[in-house]
Amino acid sequence: MTRKNPERRQELMVAAQQLFYTKGYENTSVNDIIKTVGVSKGAFYHHFDSKTAVLEAIVTQIAEQVVANLQAIIADETLSAIPKWQKVIQISNNWKIERKAELIEANRLMMMDENVLLRHKIQLETRKVVAAEMGKIISQGVDEAVFAVEHVEETAVILMAVISSFNDVIVDLLLNPDQYAVQTAVERLLGAPTGSMPIIDDDTLIAWFDSP
Amino acid sequence: MTRKNPERRQELMVAAQQLFYTKGYENTSVNDIIKTVGVSKGAFYHHFDSKTAVLEAIVTQIAEQVVANLQAIIADETLSAIPKWQKVIQISNNWKIERKAELIEANRLMMMDENVLLRHKIQLETRKVVAAEMGKIISQGVDEAVFAVEHVEETAVILMAVISSFNDVIVDLLLNPDQYAVQTAVERLLGAPTGSMPIIDDDTLIAWFDSP
Repeated sequence: MTRKNPERRQELMVAAQQLFYTKGYENTSVNDIIKTVGVSKGAFYHHFDSKTAVLEAIVTQIAEQVVANLQAIIADETLSAIPKWQKVIQISNNWKIERKAELIEANRLMMMDENVLLRHKIQLETRKVVAAEMGKIISQGVDEAVFAVEHVEETAVILMAVISSFNDVIVDLLLNPDQYAVQTAVERLLGAPTGSMPIIDDDTLIAWFDSP
Repeated sequence: MTRKNPERRQELMVAAQQLFYTKGYENTSVNDIIKTVGVSKGAFYHHFDSKTAVLEAIVTQIAEQVVANLQAIIADETLSAIPKWQKVIQISNNWKIERKAELIEANRLMMMDENVLLRHKIQLETRKVVAAEMGKIISQGVDEAVFAVEHVEETAVILMAVISSFNDVIVDLLLNPDQYAVQTAVERLLGAPTGSMPIIDDDTLIAWFDSP
């Protein structure tokens, strides 16, 4: 068995992700991927069993990146639960604003029927890992008596479903006039004080709607 | 143009649905469908533009059936909002118990990657139509002052997301030990009295776990 080259593996994943986004997952073949990278079929199968295996690897990597962005804040012991939530939201909103054009295009592509499996797997995996991080904030808030939640893990899963509830019909919560309905839902689910858990702020809204 | 035959159309849809469930949507071809029904390709394309068009027609029909089951109860002016919700849940649970074996198998098939588009479209369409019906109960509850909801339509969408939040990982809410987390979430979202909006009752649980 030859040694695996992690750079080649990453190169294949980057090419595959680009092709999935632009041509659609269903319309992309292993041949398309190896042609883009300029390697043989053998080199591909040295790293991945199938096109689905590349998809799974990409999804895992995206989920890891999402969590890495959150973990530093979640672990910050100087922040209490509600400011911690607000910081998570703020960082997530800033991240989206910086990638505005890219996200609008990625979203358009992800809404294609040809990408439903790609989207489904990314959603499932990121929701799962983000829910685990959110569970930590909920626990902390319960300890601090700012949240009233009995079923912490399950509420984290429900919370993710609520936050994502409008994602299938609109570009993003940022473009969603119903953000106050979502904010109310989040506060009620957690038993948090009214107005304490904004999903968006005016600066973010202005930045999103401003021309680049 | 020849006259369209609604019975033939329905026959094609029934055969397609059966094939989608058993072989998977991705693995089913138009040829498989016409072979099952015993008609020509021309006869198929007389009724549907493509395999996707049959899928859309099936999804619309399923959504119509779901709504038809609910509308009689929703329209019942003798029921106030909370008993109406309870009746909707009860009828839905009974419907599932009657089709237990069939639903477990359908769920297993729907969870296959090959059926992700089928599942996605059914979920999107049924959630949309059921949310519209749920919105009517929410409005009624607000009028009766048993619910405290400002954004009725948005809360109905969020409610559907909450109720479906565990569906991707387990067979059904009926098999879900986290049903009390969901019940609490629903009651809090609607500002309803604690304990007023069960998702399941003991009789249903027993019937579900009993051998057939």
